[in-house]
Amino acid sequence: MTLTGARLLLRDFAQLATPAGTGAPLRGPALGEVEVLEDAFVLCDGESIEAVGRMRDLPAIAGDVVEVECRGLCAVPGLVDCHTHAAFGGDRVDEFSFRAGGASYEELHAAGGGILSTVRATRAAGEDGLRAAVELHRSWMLREGTTTFEAKSGYGLDRATELASLRAIRQAGGVPTWLGAHAVPPELPDADAYLDFALSEVLPEAAEIAEAADVFLERGAFDATQARRYLETCREAGLALRLHGDQFTESGAIPLAVELGARSVDHLEATGEEGIRTLAASDVVGVLLPASALFLGRPMPPARALIDAGAAVALATDFNPGSAFCESLPLVCSLAATQLHLSPAEALAACTVNAAHVLGRADRIGRLAPGHRADITLLDASDWRYLAYHLGGRVVAKVVVGGELR
Amino acid sequence: MTLTGARLLLRDFAQLATPAGTGAPLRGPALGEVEVLEDAFVLCDGESIEAVGRMRDLPAIAGDVVEVECRGLCAVPGLVDCHTHAAFGGDRVDEFSFRAGGASYEELHAAGGGILSTVRATRAAGEDGLRAAVELHRSWMLREGTTTFEAKSGYGLDRATELASLRAIRQAGGVPTWLGAHAVPPELPDADAYLDFALSEVLPEAAEIAEAADVFLERGAFDATQARRYLETCREAGLALRLHGDQFTESGAIPLAVELGARSVDHLEATGEEGIRTLAASDVVGVLLPASALFLGRPMPPARALIDAGAAVALATDFNPGSAFCESLPLVCSLAATQLHLSPAEALAACTVNAAHVLGRADRIGRLAPGHRADITLLDASDWRYLAYHLGGRVVAKVVVGGELR
Repeated sequence: MTLTGARLLLRDFAQLATPAGTGAPLRGPALGEVEVLEDAFVLCDGESIEAVGRMRDLPAIAGDVVEVECRGLCAVPGLVDCHTHAAFGGDRVDEFSFRAGGASYEELHAAGGGILSTVRATRAAGEDGLRAAVELHRSWMLREGTTTFEAKSGYGLDRATELASLRAIRQAGGVPTWLGAHAVPPELPDADAYLDFALSEVLPEAAEIAEAADVFLERGAFDATQARRYLETCREAGLALRLHGDQFTESGAIPLAVELGARSVDHLEATGEEGIRTLAASDVVGVLLPASALFLGRPMPPARALIDAGAAVALATDFNPGSAFCESLPLVCSLAATQLHLSPAEALAACTVNAAHVLGRADRIGRLAPGHRADITLLDASDWRYLAYHLGGRVVAKVVVGGELR
Repeated sequence: MTLTGARLLLRDFAQLATPAGTGAPLRGPALGEVEVLEDAFVLCDGESIEAVGRMRDLPAIAGDVVEVECRGLCAVPGLVDCHTHAAFGGDRVDEFSFRAGGASYEELHAAGGGILSTVRATRAAGEDGLRAAVELHRSWMLREGTTTFEAKSGYGLDRATELASLRAIRQAGGVPTWLGAHAVPPELPDADAYLDFALSEVLPEAAEIAEAADVFLERGAFDATQARRYLETCREAGLALRLHGDQFTESGAIPLAVELGARSVDHLEATGEEGIRTLAASDVVGVLLPASALFLGRPMPPARALIDAGAAVALATDFNPGSAFCESLPLVCSLAATQLHLSPAEALAACTVNAAHVLGRADRIGRLAPGHRADITLLDASDWRYLAYHLGGRVVAKVVVGGELR
């Protein structure tokens, strides 16, 4: 076989590791079945992968080709962060320092700190400030190997700031999710009245920018009745559905997610046996956020039980200023292996192909395979499992995004 | 005041944060008393700090000066990692992946994996291989802001490899500790017979290279009687003393450390109330290694109780291939804040000035103060507490080592 045209050839990888692909999220034993090629190449044609294989099977290439020597590096699919809150102003370092002394996240939230302090800073940032913030956070994610990121609004809670957040996310290349039901704003403290406003005044335009809607179903935020109303209305407007559920308390998020055909239910630190069974019997992906549990010093989600019961799971950072100031999916993979008892292979699949399913993009990203987007994370390691093994280290050497080496 | 001569001026730091200094390790409320200057400078003269202060107090400088603009960055003392095992060959990524499936560290150790698999790889590496390994690990540490590192031998357990390890550490600029009593080698499985060999055949030359001796006092390694014999003999040879103690079981390490006047007792995950009281009443520093507890999925040390009881504590990575493949002190600071309930200020002091005390160098490193070595870690943050707050992020922008910007 002879290939023609100008191409990018990444050659001599120590290893190339990619999860298998199917039309549905991986679950059960398939989650841990990563294909590993030693002494491998990836050939990119424009924005897409044309071929992957072992160096000994490299085809002759006619025409221009840019060759990049990748000896001592490993290739994995560009990491996919399917749950972030990257559109915010300010930080919460004061609160973090205070919490180190013993105050709980719920106490801070009830005291008017927590989410609402970020709402104030986000409104004050303005559209330019938000655009700069999302771009900065995007650059941090790229350094850590994330080539596709989702981000939610939800720190505006007024029309202008929610829409500005969604635009900033899209402009930075992110996948926008309208988290219109994140909290109630100080000017509209009644949750039902706030939803009246959000669904009538914000949703019509939000639905033009966002791909999905999300709700914080939790004691002190929105209850199951309110979440159902919000999600059903958003679904009618054409948005895919997601839920924050079972973070601090079991509040019916899993049955609601299954009933409404949501793409995912995220957090699950408080999920019990019945929730595990219900999720495992469904097509909803459980998105696990161990950096958030670590950051808050809270129990980890029952990841092993979910996987063993047959649930499809994904991993994400939950990057946000209050409960997970962490954009690093490699750290999340380390936490998955050490705290959630996932194998490195399960962790890789959970933050690539399964995360791509959560974003409705598994046909184009999440695997190293011909026809997929040329999004590749290059690891500074001779064994791809350093992605999880090298705790807190700079394991990501470079990324390729849409065929472009960064 | 006018200063003369060629100097390095780091100017316009958003913040400069440094712990206070005394002749002894910080403890109690003093541990959390970090001095913070806004809009600050550090002036270096050769290898030393000449002055620190606010920009408005910057003196006129006569003569050559190289100015470096540090707007948007913070300065903290170069981080001091007082407990690593950076001299090893190979890795333990297979074991890590296996352990993610449920095997315990003690089971792997008993099965001939664990430390002994690294002993095989370290012996096979040879002196050149060891030198390259320590240099590589040193470069990783520098990226994470560590400007002074201790490292132990202990993966050789024969004369040639133990001495080669200590030389490799010193050649890479590290502070060498002879961990001659880390485990028993396969060729000398009787612990007393091995100590006969180590103390007569290795100690005389090890004492010429190393600054301290260390022992793994633990069920399955060395008992208190053996540890005492090893440490007393090493003390006679002029070495300072340290102990690995209370990692999995309480085995008398704290009383022994206190009795022998050791500089530190390290790990303490299993320390109970009596141990806390004993340590608090002594001059021995408790070195806490939360990345190791995280990596092994084990309980965290009782850090808050130790500090509140008045014990002097330090933080370190425990960097090693089996139980903490983590060279990042910023991650350790994040773990200290989220898992050990230390404030960011306590965490900073614990991995700078208190760690310097453990290494017998607090007169020259661990603080930003005139006369101290110009070892400075530059944080990519406008608030120095991002050192702990930015979980897993690339919070270290650059380091200055002995007055040289890297």
